[in-house]
Amino acid sequence: MRLPLETRYNDYDTKGHVNNALYLTYFEMARVRAWLDVVGGDPDAPFILAEATVRFVKPANIGIPLGIEIETSEIRTRAWVWRYRVLDMRDESLVAEGSTVQVMYDYAAGSPVPIPAHIREGLGRL
Amino acid sequence: MRLPLETRYNDYDTKGHVNNALYLTYFEMARVRAWLDVVGGDPDAPFILAEATVRFVKPANIGIPLGIEIETSEIRTRAWVWRYRVLDMRDESLVAEGSTVQVMYDYAAGSPVPIPAHIREGLGRL
Amino acid sequence: MRLPLETRYNDYDTKGHVNNALYLTYFEMARVRAWLDVVGGDPDAPFILAEATVRFVKPANIGIPLGIEIETSEIRTRAWVWRYRVLDMRDESLVAEGSTVQVMYDYAAGSPVPIPAHIREGLGRL
Amino acid sequence: MRLPLETRYNDYDTKGHVNNALYLTYFEMARVRAWLDVVGGDPDAPFILAEATVRFVKPANIGIPLGIEIETSEIRTRAWVWRYRVLDMRDESLVAEGSTVQVMYDYAAGSPVPIPAHIREGLGRL
Repeated sequence: MRLPLETRYNDYDTKGHVNNALYLTYFEMARVRAWLDVVGGDPDAPFILAEATVRFVKPANIGIPLGIEIETSEIRTRAWVWRYRVLDMRDESLVAEGSTVQVMYDYAAGSPVPIPAHIREGLGRL
Repeated sequence: MRLPLETRYNDYDTKGHVNNALYLTYFEMARVRAWLDVVGGDPDAPFILAEATVRFVKPANIGIPLGIEIETSEIRTRAWVWRYRVLDMRDESLVAEGSTVQVMYDYAAGSPVPIPAHIREGLGRL
Repeated sequence: MRLPLETRYNDYDTKGHVNNALYLTYFEMARVRAWLDVVGGDPDAPFILAEATVRFVKPANIGIPLGIEIETSEIRTRAWVWRYRVLDMRDESLVAEGSTVQVMYDYAAGSPVPIPAHIREGLGRL
Repeated sequence: MRLPLETRYNDYDTKGHVNNALYLTYFEMARVRAWLDVVGGDPDAPFILAEATVRFVKPANIGIPLGIEIETSEIRTRAWVWRYRVLDMRDESLVAEGSTVQVMYDYAAGSPVPIPAHIREGLGRL
């Protein structure tokens, strides 16, 4: 799934680049859209984030149009991995990439639970 | 009440100045501290923000130590006004100033309510 | 000029509402787009923000689609006023409104300057 | 090096937890302080961030006092690794941990350069 990425003026720091922490926000923007539009998950998002990694490939200067891709790269019993690629849309070159590990979670019980079948299927579509 | 203001690298924009929207965050930081430490209010903060204004006096360049002052400038039946001054702590010159109007609110009833006596007294200490 | 407003998950605070400081960021998003697409101004934006006000009308709960309108409400010799309206796009009801005062600025000289004719004309189109 | 971590009300999301992206901002806050106060580096920070990882251990609910630790865990020819631990200061239990890889960089030449001796020594003190 590829989405245009709407940046904001205060995403950019004093060097004129997207600040490093914003990439996790961009990953989250893609994740929310993927969860609702492709996976078909509950808006309440009954999963927790366990890990996140980002590799910064080249700076995203202000004015460069960005896009983001998200795909499911691994599905385990209670957890899954999403991978992300932030692209410079002028030539689709890579700006940053990374991944997050999500754990299916029962907030009432306070513990991880197996991924339900319909979510598993939805994750497979991404 | 005067507080030191801990800024963050990504508060600063491409011109090397604190981004304008951050001043409302700084006002909020002062407000939370004032509410808890001086007014003695409930951490759940049963008030809503009705208005905010900021006047930008001079840019806050990265590296300049900042402080913030908050004081109660008006107390009405259901609402009160806080005033803020962001200072360049090198010489206490004014960087920005502004105000917010708060309305005492009963979230359960969904309506404004009179300011309780102990809050009124607490606001008067600020 | 009316724009859809793409909110982010971390724009929302613990009460599930858009945090108050974000409205200045939303105003900025509209301003940047208006400046580039309608006014036809220089991307370097040779103006400074002198004042900002926001009036919070109703909370923007997570999930509500938002839009923003920007218009020029006053043009003076060296400064102009933009007005903003943030709307709940389900019924176009008002969520928040506000204004900002901009001053045309010569960064090299460090002083306000008269608004050039082509900018004045561009502001009039908004 | 251990620092108190001043959180802000809009760091917390609708679940009342620090939003995941903020941890990279917290790492940056520690990094800036470490760079200036311990390493004795140039405020212009002639390094680039190449990678960042975060492992989220337990949610940081609003009201919990947080601290952060930063240490140098590896020094290579042109790059070094910093490790971070965000702590719940009530019992020093772990909230999140992670690392970032920095590359010494000559912005004028546009290329990585060996870490100068005085920086190498400074990194070793951390």
